[in-house]
Amino acid sequence: MDELDDGATIPIVEELSGKHLVVTSDSYTVYPIFFPGGDIGKLAACGTMNDLAVMGATPIAVLDAIVVEEGFPFEDLERVLESFKRVLEEENVALIGGDFKVMPSGKLDGMVISTTGIGIAESVITDRDLRVGDKLVINGTVGDHGAAIMALQAGLDVESTGLASDVHPLTRAMEEALEIGGVHAAKDLTRGGLASALNDFASKNNVALYVHEDAIPIREEVLAYSEMLGVDPLALACEGRALLAVEAGVAEEIVEAWRRMGYGDAAVIGEVVEGRPGYVLMETSAGGIRVVTRPSGEIVPRIC
Amino acid sequence: MDELDDGATIPIVEELSGKHLVVTSDSYTVYPIFFPGGDIGKLAACGTMNDLAVMGATPIAVLDAIVVEEGFPFEDLERVLESFKRVLEEENVALIGGDFKVMPSGKLDGMVISTTGIGIAESVITDRDLRVGDKLVINGTVGDHGAAIMALQAGLDVESTGLASDVHPLTRAMEEALEIGGVHAAKDLTRGGLASALNDFASKNNVALYVHEDAIPIREEVLAYSEMLGVDPLALACEGRALLAVEAGVAEEIVEAWRRMGYGDAAVIGEVVEGRPGYVLMETSAGGIRVVTRPSGEIVPRIC
Repeated sequence: MDELDDGATIPIVEELSGKHLVVTSDSYTVYPIFFPGGDIGKLAACGTMNDLAVMGATPIAVLDAIVVEEGFPFEDLERVLESFKRVLEEENVALIGGDFKVMPSGKLDGMVISTTGIGIAESVITDRDLRVGDKLVINGTVGDHGAAIMALQAGLDVESTGLASDVHPLTRAMEEALEIGGVHAAKDLTRGGLASALNDFASKNNVALYVHEDAIPIREEVLAYSEMLGVDPLALACEGRALLAVEAGVAEEIVEAWRRMGYGDAAVIGEVVEGRPGYVLMETSAGGIRVVTRPSGEIVPRIC
Repeated sequence: MDELDDGATIPIVEELSGKHLVVTSDSYTVYPIFFPGGDIGKLAACGTMNDLAVMGATPIAVLDAIVVEEGFPFEDLERVLESFKRVLEEENVALIGGDFKVMPSGKLDGMVISTTGIGIAESVITDRDLRVGDKLVINGTVGDHGAAIMALQAGLDVESTGLASDVHPLTRAMEEALEIGGVHAAKDLTRGGLASALNDFASKNNVALYVHEDAIPIREEVLAYSEMLGVDPLALACEGRALLAVEAGVAEEIVEAWRRMGYGDAAVIGEVVEGRPGYVLMETSAGGIRVVTRPSGEIVPRIC
């Protein structure tokens, strides 16, 4: 890879023939920029890795475009860039270019990081190949990131609540699952959390999903915070969770592999069923059935 | 190309083997977002095309990440996106993905567009292969964009001054030059204008450049505005100009070809010479020699 001023070049060697180039673009505006479990730099790097990972791609390169307000503290910028780069180093991914701009104070509050991630996939995983009978698996607890950020934004003493973002790269978890095989669809949970991802799966594939409330891993702290504020933990953002639809025969194997990797809360949370296409139904802990709808209404700004 | 939610995939077909993938990332914060000659949407699209074009690449795909302030007028957003897409359509380039976020009012003034451009190059042109004896050619007048934006920011009645941005895609101009051949280096002029591009050429290649003030095309209106405000027109931003270092034998041919394309002001403006490596020397209209330095001091915010 050759790094240049305004861009970078990647030679297309013969071994790449037949593979797929995967490209993803996102911007990150999380506020506050530092939070328990990470910061906007770590979030931007992990978010980019995760978009690629759930598509079955191995990340190879990242570009960034950073805009900060005039007078943005230099030590904060350094800390953010440090976090950003640390993730890329750990993931063996090259930062091949970028852009940096300053906006006059009052025109921007804090910073915005936009990233582009480039990866190579042998075969691409989408969110559109669910099949009736598939099991739904997740690699950990839901809502951690959203709860931590919302609590911070509400001015709560987050340290004492034990809330922390789950932000981290999903590369290894996806590799493990793809190695076992039988993965039909994957999605990383970001804005709108599990509720949004489930509804995407159901509506895009015109199938019904049936999930079990008791099986969905949620940390006590997140549950307590959700109840206090009256928000649905299933709609809270995550930044280190993948929802997969897999062949029934491999579901337990993937969950076991994840647990061995340290994802102690990985679980099978439901299945793809016939009837009521587009609906997400949940068997509640109380024994009833609830329709899990797509989160709407208030958009939570600057959650990721 | 398959367009997905959070990214896109491009199959690496065999014909691409041996070519180069060129990737560029940039963010655009120009203010005001509408200006004579264009708007932030056209600027973002053209800027992306131009970064690729000067590297010798044919643009194939673009991703965008747009952040607007809450309450940003919907019709303005539509107009901007319209301009953005019009350029891509005219250039036959696919918009393969993107992201859209809203920031609370007071946290961002207006909008920021970040783009990533992807192109394919048979062989990559850089800004690092200048040779003594090369001629420097440019495809038109300098400073048009910078003068128009600065005049607007200063609250002048820009319509009456005749100032307008030169923003447009350089794809065709670069294709024409590359077809003639003998192009050793290329650079699009953006922030810092011609002065900045010349200094980049000189310092990165450790050569001296000798340019002729009389030969540098500048519009009367830009000159008048520059004199009025005491700024150097050579340091004013352009958004549709390429500076090329080419074999002496093809310089006139390239300029002639450009003129036939409608670039009536295209010109040979100087040459790469021995001695004083890293310096840009200008023979002034008055007959003296001036050193053209890299623009520094005040950064003009939100010029592009």
